[in-house]
Amino acid sequence: MSGNSIGQRLVLTSFGESHGKSIGAVLDGCPAGLEVDEKEIQKILDYRKPGTSHITTQRKESDKVEIISGIFRGFTTGAPITMLIWNADQKSRDYENLKTNLRPGHSDYPAMIKYNHFNDYRGGGRFSGRLTATHVMGGVIARKLLKVTLGIETNSYTKQIGKIEMNKEFDEKMIKSIYKNDVRCPDENTAEKMKTSILNARKKGDSLGGVIESITTKVPVGLGEPIFSSLESELSKAIFSIPSVKGIEFGSGFEGSKLFGSENNDLYIINRGRIITKTNNSGGILGGISNGMPITIRIAFKPASSISKKQRTVNIQTKKISTLQVQGRHDPCVVPRAPPVVDSLVALTLADHALLAGQIKPVL
Amino acid sequence: MSGNSIGQRLVLTSFGESHGKSIGAVLDGCPAGLEVDEKEIQKILDYRKPGTSHITTQRKESDKVEIISGIFRGFTTGAPITMLIWNADQKSRDYENLKTNLRPGHSDYPAMIKYNHFNDYRGGGRFSGRLTATHVMGGVIARKLLKVTLGIETNSYTKQIGKIEMNKEFDEKMIKSIYKNDVRCPDENTAEKMKTSILNARKKGDSLGGVIESITTKVPVGLGEPIFSSLESELSKAIFSIPSVKGIEFGSGFEGSKLFGSENNDLYIINRGRIITKTNNSGGILGGISNGMPITIRIAFKPASSISKKQRTVNIQTKKISTLQVQGRHDPCVVPRAPPVVDSLVALTLADHALLAGQIKPVL
Amino acid sequence: MSGNSIGQRLVLTSFGESHGKSIGAVLDGCPAGLEVDEKEIQKILDYRKPGTSHITTQRKESDKVEIISGIFRGFTTGAPITMLIWNADQKSRDYENLKTNLRPGHSDYPAMIKYNHFNDYRGGGRFSGRLTATHVMGGVIARKLLKVTLGIETNSYTKQIGKIEMNKEFDEKMIKSIYKNDVRCPDENTAEKMKTSILNARKKGDSLGGVIESITTKVPVGLGEPIFSSLESELSKAIFSIPSVKGIEFGSGFEGSKLFGSENNDLYIINRGRIITKTNNSGGILGGISNGMPITIRIAFKPASSISKKQRTVNIQTKKISTLQVQGRHDPCVVPRAPPVVDSLVALTLADHALLAGQIKPVL
Amino acid sequence: MSGNSIGQRLVLTSFGESHGKSIGAVLDGCPAGLEVDEKEIQKILDYRKPGTSHITTQRKESDKVEIISGIFRGFTTGAPITMLIWNADQKSRDYENLKTNLRPGHSDYPAMIKYNHFNDYRGGGRFSGRLTATHVMGGVIARKLLKVTLGIETNSYTKQIGKIEMNKEFDEKMIKSIYKNDVRCPDENTAEKMKTSILNARKKGDSLGGVIESITTKVPVGLGEPIFSSLESELSKAIFSIPSVKGIEFGSGFEGSKLFGSENNDLYIINRGRIITKTNNSGGILGGISNGMPITIRIAFKPASSISKKQRTVNIQTKKISTLQVQGRHDPCVVPRAPPVVDSLVALTLADHALLAGQIKPVL
Repeated sequence: MSGNSIGQRLVLTSFGESHGKSIGAVLDGCPAGLEVDEKEIQKILDYRKPGTSHITTQRKESDKVEIISGIFRGFTTGAPITMLIWNADQKSRDYENLKTNLRPGHSDYPAMIKYNHFNDYRGGGRFSGRLTATHVMGGVIARKLLKVTLGIETNSYTKQIGKIEMNKEFDEKMIKSIYKNDVRCPDENTAEKMKTSILNARKKGDSLGGVIESITTKVPVGLGEPIFSSLESELSKAIFSIPSVKGIEFGSGFEGSKLFGSENNDLYIINRGRIITKTNNSGGILGGISNGMPITIRIAFKPASSISKKQRTVNIQTKKISTLQVQGRHDPCVVPRAPPVVDSLVALTLADHALLAGQIKPVL
Repeated sequence: MSGNSIGQRLVLTSFGESHGKSIGAVLDGCPAGLEVDEKEIQKILDYRKPGTSHITTQRKESDKVEIISGIFRGFTTGAPITMLIWNADQKSRDYENLKTNLRPGHSDYPAMIKYNHFNDYRGGGRFSGRLTATHVMGGVIARKLLKVTLGIETNSYTKQIGKIEMNKEFDEKMIKSIYKNDVRCPDENTAEKMKTSILNARKKGDSLGGVIESITTKVPVGLGEPIFSSLESELSKAIFSIPSVKGIEFGSGFEGSKLFGSENNDLYIINRGRIITKTNNSGGILGGISNGMPITIRIAFKPASSISKKQRTVNIQTKKISTLQVQGRHDPCVVPRAPPVVDSLVALTLADHALLAGQIKPVL
Repeated sequence: MSGNSIGQRLVLTSFGESHGKSIGAVLDGCPAGLEVDEKEIQKILDYRKPGTSHITTQRKESDKVEIISGIFRGFTTGAPITMLIWNADQKSRDYENLKTNLRPGHSDYPAMIKYNHFNDYRGGGRFSGRLTATHVMGGVIARKLLKVTLGIETNSYTKQIGKIEMNKEFDEKMIKSIYKNDVRCPDENTAEKMKTSILNARKKGDSLGGVIESITTKVPVGLGEPIFSSLESELSKAIFSIPSVKGIEFGSGFEGSKLFGSENNDLYIINRGRIITKTNNSGGILGGISNGMPITIRIAFKPASSISKKQRTVNIQTKKISTLQVQGRHDPCVVPRAPPVVDSLVALTLADHALLAGQIKPVL
Repeated sequence: MSGNSIGQRLVLTSFGESHGKSIGAVLDGCPAGLEVDEKEIQKILDYRKPGTSHITTQRKESDKVEIISGIFRGFTTGAPITMLIWNADQKSRDYENLKTNLRPGHSDYPAMIKYNHFNDYRGGGRFSGRLTATHVMGGVIARKLLKVTLGIETNSYTKQIGKIEMNKEFDEKMIKSIYKNDVRCPDENTAEKMKTSILNARKKGDSLGGVIESITTKVPVGLGEPIFSSLESELSKAIFSIPSVKGIEFGSGFEGSKLFGSENNDLYIINRGRIITKTNNSGGILGGISNGMPITIRIAFKPASSISKKQRTVNIQTKKISTLQVQGRHDPCVVPRAPPVVDSLVALTLADHALLAGQIKPVL
């Protein structure tokens, strides 16, 4: 299986290029009998869609999803579900001049070498962030499957943009506030500051990165296949498929590495007859297996590489230094568009593992 | 493929339990024609071995590796290479009392539920850090394969123990100093402080975590299969198989998420006719593909969960709160034993991808 | 990986249903730099297409293939190649009455049970022979890849229809005669008899099976990964994905099992400085690996299950015996449409193994 | 995953060489909670063992199996089960002279080319029939798993040796007679004739092939994952891993290809309230899925290639014709040793699919 597919029992295959005819996904292994509707998928795709506010790119992408296989009379059949978005509004001319001038921070250079110049470089081609829409197509179905069968809920929000961080701890009541603003931060004050910092970066022709936090609740004990398919292994593999992600941590993560064992260990307690832990420094995963506590993940996004500020670079043909100003309509910050993508990859991974662990049956 | 195997073309399968008869590894897909010797493997296994200094556990494990298939007249044959370590010095009685009292921070609880009490819990069983010896068995061969065919070198060192951090930037000259001290930190001053902090934690019956930094040089451009088998995806999947790892970042990682794009982008320059980047915030990976710069990874280890300090916990049979004091001879800090394990997993991943990318041939 | 994908390095994923919106294929892992054209694929698809002669079904399926990803300026890019056929001319009403009356010899009954009635049963749904068009989409590309890089040629022809068998041994000169008649038998006399027998079966509302022979030449020595990915293992796995196939044999096959070792062993000789064998009872495969001789396979197809003759069956709702007359426009014999499908599966398998063995590079 | 592993959820990895230190198997994915004992495995291994009668090779192989991981207190734990046989009684000198004189019908030549002479050629090395013992190690556990959880029983017997065929149809009562004689044919008269023909071949320094028939009963409806993981695809893939197998057919197979659809279709009937078919030309598989009828397979074995008769061959160094007389103690016919191997591969495949279909749970 090459790099375009992920999962063992629930397999998502992504295809398409940013400026090709279409992008799409095949979701294979979804149990038969799940009600699936294009509208549900569209709703979440729209959360990821650019061009909806001042803080994202002004490219308009209608991104209408069409299901072309695997659904019969509104229900999954057990056959592969194929979903398509036809591309439009491509301005490939913007990219022609980039064939020789390498964009710093982009895949341009390694992709060119790897594929011996045969890769479709238009708009980032196969490496474009646009492809995360294919993760969402499959992810919405996985998320519903988890919810319907096991009650699992996965949500994520913008925790940090540049140097602005939300310091309040996330709690479940905040879920409904995530999509109330453009930056997807449930704390309104922080959201405002984040928005301002993005608009400032934009004005300067620059970009910002940030951190997404993902919280998944009602996870049963026992998901994860040790050793190499530990939940941390599988979740990180999935999440690093998002362009721009450069770091990930579970539970107390890097901060936890500075604590004593007696501080970082989560003590077991009894709560309404159930064994839980008092704290959740483990992020819900012990020995690679879910322990029933919320799975908490923090994900670092680098600032977007495409900036309109002038940058020095190398012309790959002349092998001389040149100056580059990336044209096109780029996101000053991709983080606000990332929560539906993160949710999708978390859901795909957990649904795959729930199938592997026999917690979801192959036919509903 | 279940959780006990990793890799696509170069597949490591790990087996065994901490207190079972043996632990071992099958390395499949290694090209024919590589010279392999038990002594080379033993040398690196010894770096990982406990009982060699005051800062690690006093358990003595001879950990003698034996190759039982796949090598003929000193060379790999193309057939699977099987390596064994027979277990000894097991004091399983130490663990019997833990069957009911859950150890905080351990896999005990989720493993018990997942395997319906059939799992071998002695000494952590399949979840023991001892199993990382199986990663090393395969990793030494992968590391040699990379070195011999492509000149790739992978090294790692202890960058942080608890709150003590080495602040100097790592450079290649430090490689030979890594194993000069017990903590595996090439800066002697920092190493001393780290050692003291570990011994202090030990005295208190407590434990410490830390951070390992891994640097891989001479990586060719073009390793990594986008989207889901990006180098970051595959390296993180491999590295999260190490018990205690709770965070990972590439290049500028979490810090990079606070920078502007213009600060974090690595500018291309020409150096002796080769295209390189001036800085290496990408950690050698762009678009999931190696760009020829060193691959730099930082890995967060939580403090070891097994501490002799008294902890409150739950008795899983009575479902009542009880008190626990973990017996046995445990590591106050596992980080100093981790560099050979990290090197092994990095090497296994890169060798697999070098095979996938056709940079290493299936027969030498 | 579930049942809808095949291959390790060159992976074909098939999707779609007979009477759904579309059928299609994603071919992943094809090296970058191969010239690919919709017309080449269309040409071979047309050989498989029904409705072109009296001996196949009268259903008209235009089966126009459309490439929607993975090709840029006429060449493969290394990204997944997605190909679609939009369905048309569906007469699903023909099938509605079959929901309760099980068709003997069909997948109806086990599919219904397996998918708990959620499967799309219209026109056989996912189980329809129509889906072999998705094999051909990918197969044409694999076949070209083999031809262009290694000179490998794979062809197949109708060797037997019902009790009529072509007794002449196939030789390379016959290749150009295969598609000169509707039954795809290069011997005109036999072809005529086969045609007559098919038309007779049709008149009686009955159907016929037969045997396809596949011959692949210019195969390099060394393809096949023992033990479980032997060429015979992988070729048979691929070929049994064709509905109606119930037997396969390589070289002397079942007849060879009646010979003495001294009769069946192929003696080595030197021919123009090359080591070859005098006979080819091995069918070009020894120890699961290609030995450089032509790969010869014979494949048994059962007679098509859909016949218009009255058959007794069981009504799955009433659980009573009932009478059934399968309506719709069915093939009296599917064998003449099978050669392009067999060629495709052979090519996909050999191309995958040529990639695995490093005989084809990941980038051309 | 390379050629040394098979299965998706229940994965068998085989390792070792005929004259190396050991041969062995890792069975991964077996549900926790199954009682497993070395003696059960040994019993079936002994059925496969050579040197037990006049009709097999006189090599003595004690073939004592040792379980070294995955079993705790007599039960599977969910961890990989590793089983070893230490090699003994190797007379590698017998083979040294074969390094240059290619043995007709053997893997010698393609293996030498494929692995560039690095392969272990002693006693056939990795290609030896001896390696089928590793299939049996895993197969015995799979067979027990099927029996204990679903009541499935798989058996096979010698149906044909050379030109001697058992003409009676196999019925369940014959199962207990299979191992009553050395040829493993339940019909005593036929068995006697088979034995005589093997002894005759032996006297002449020649060898014989034959046919094994496998029958599996009490299979639930719904095993098999269409399209490419159809039961026929997966069973044939597994069975062609046995050296010497050159043909396979399900149900009416090649004979069925000569029938009319109205003759070959199995009509549905009601039997004690259950839907079954009157005949079983499908061999229990429709559309790649089990239909609840017995799965019937016939498997063609070529005559063993190692014969003591003089054969002409090529000297690979001088590239001249030479004469060869294969020394060593070889089987005049391997077919009588094959039933436990066939049973093992059938059981491994069906158990894997029962897990995939959710009919066996990951923990018992």
